[in-house]
Amino acid sequence: MIKVGIFGYGNLGKGVECAVAKNKDMELVAVFTRRDPETVKIQTPSAKVYKEDELKNMTNDIDVLVLCGGSATDLPEQTPKYAELYNVVDSFDTHARIPEHFANVDKAAKASGKTCVISCGWDPGMFSLNRLYANCILPDGKDYTFWGKGVSQGHSDAVRRIDGVKDCRQYTIPVDAALDAVRAGKQPELSTREKHTRECFVVAEEGADLAKIENDIKTMPNYFSDYDTTVHFISEEEMKANHSGLPHGGNVIRTGYTGMNNEHTHIIEYKLTLDSNPEFTGSVIAAYARAVYKLNKEGQTGCKTVFDIAPAYLSDLSGEEIRAHLL
Amino acid sequence: MIKVGIFGYGNLGKGVECAVAKNKDMELVAVFTRRDPETVKIQTPSAKVYKEDELKNMTNDIDVLVLCGGSATDLPEQTPKYAELYNVVDSFDTHARIPEHFANVDKAAKASGKTCVISCGWDPGMFSLNRLYANCILPDGKDYTFWGKGVSQGHSDAVRRIDGVKDCRQYTIPVDAALDAVRAGKQPELSTREKHTRECFVVAEEGADLAKIENDIKTMPNYFSDYDTTVHFISEEEMKANHSGLPHGGNVIRTGYTGMNNEHTHIIEYKLTLDSNPEFTGSVIAAYARAVYKLNKEGQTGCKTVFDIAPAYLSDLSGEEIRAHLL
Repeated sequence: MIKVGIFGYGNLGKGVECAVAKNKDMELVAVFTRRDPETVKIQTPSAKVYKEDELKNMTNDIDVLVLCGGSATDLPEQTPKYAELYNVVDSFDTHARIPEHFANVDKAAKASGKTCVISCGWDPGMFSLNRLYANCILPDGKDYTFWGKGVSQGHSDAVRRIDGVKDCRQYTIPVDAALDAVRAGKQPELSTREKHTRECFVVAEEGADLAKIENDIKTMPNYFSDYDTTVHFISEEEMKANHSGLPHGGNVIRTGYTGMNNEHTHIIEYKLTLDSNPEFTGSVIAAYARAVYKLNKEGQTGCKTVFDIAPAYLSDLSGEEIRAHLL
Repeated sequence: MIKVGIFGYGNLGKGVECAVAKNKDMELVAVFTRRDPETVKIQTPSAKVYKEDELKNMTNDIDVLVLCGGSATDLPEQTPKYAELYNVVDSFDTHARIPEHFANVDKAAKASGKTCVISCGWDPGMFSLNRLYANCILPDGKDYTFWGKGVSQGHSDAVRRIDGVKDCRQYTIPVDAALDAVRAGKQPELSTREKHTRECFVVAEEGADLAKIENDIKTMPNYFSDYDTTVHFISEEEMKANHSGLPHGGNVIRTGYTGMNNEHTHIIEYKLTLDSNPEFTGSVIAAYARAVYKLNKEGQTGCKTVFDIAPAYLSDLSGEEIRAHLL
């Protein structure tokens, strides 16, 4: 059994817990938290909840530690720190800071003889993998990534910070016409506005100026001003009844040409339709936790990404079995 | 430059030639053939055509040899034989014989210190990879593979062997209702007949018994009797005008559940739409030829499949570059 620890028990930590339960060769040993452990109720009867401090004492009890903190401030500090003690997996997704994060984690993991995977999930993660494979197969082509339909936590949070807003759920929605144009293989140039629309479901405070809220959303730089945005004001009850899930997904598409005269067009599409973003991300992480465990046993240490790991390491089956059943 | 040789110059050999031309770090050095080299006209001015015999003299001129023979009789003999001299890639696709083929090639390559990839293309190949990734991410789920719309060479050949048939092109077509049922996430049980239909365009000899041909096709065991098949009789001119291409493609879909009570459904779909089956297969092979070259430089020898090769090996970019641009 691969003994797994989870640090951080928000949506992602809960998703990893569910994923571990689906993998017969894995066992959740402990959840670590910065909160009072008494207040954290987990779903795995055999696992315990500890304060973060206990992490320094449990290196013999845990094979892989999954870090479920945020990319803004938690992971840049936590991943290199715990790479000194554990094989770790994180889902760091601040694109611009990946080189720096990779270097920090690699240095710590090489020094400690541990194996780490950063930026693991679906984007970055499975979408990245599909971009890489498709680029290598069709060097003469063009990439497109669409997100949604799904809930963007970042955009929902941005709306919640507007005066008079009690709650918001923001959906990112790919534009069908853009998807169709890409799938036709014509390599269109698409603006931000042409690729996605945004839809906000907002619970306003009593007496709030709805027209002003709507305008504040639609004109918000970076988040909304480059998109066509629809705003719906709804009740708290409706929010709870219809918008409590965290669905997401999207498409990675590469179209490209082959033939001595580019006479043939090919379309490679990878599509995810996810009922629960954190549970799917947790499921990808669990598979890579297995890879990290196996790589470390082989003495392959340091920081890795999904690009550096042969697919067979993700599986609990032998080489013979996967060749017989999946090739 | 990675110096590539091609053995066998049918549709696949031509597809590999086109793919090599698209990869700036690769160069086609030579095409080897069992035919009279004078009769083989290739499209790469800088490359030469040789008899197969010359292969034993060119080990210093070629980094990777791509074997483009058939799986029935050519590759079981050729791949182990040439693994004694070269790093090789083949597209062996006789599923039941993969374990035996793998063992033969592995033994030869380990003895010679060469690196080989077998069963490389889109199925087996990219479809296999997507089955593996999706199985590892969603252990509690179900796989579906659909092929087409595309030309099946095997089925076209089977019809051509019927008395009175001059030519045939057989299209395999996935049933939309089956695809929709799978994409709904309900994990339906689908019979062979429910998943695909078959459509045959047949040029008959003058005076042939068309009703008998149609019946012979529709009742042919293994190939057609388990499917709903449509037969169209057309002229040679129409065959040439409308059915000279080799399009193909298909979908690998896995749907699965997460959550402590299976409360969330996820759908992972990989879809290929290919204007030219052999040119796309050749493009996958070219990317794995690069991987084989890099692995051999590192001293990683023996037989591999797509499962055993970390994605980064397929790319001509550095680790820093792919992390910066594709992660």
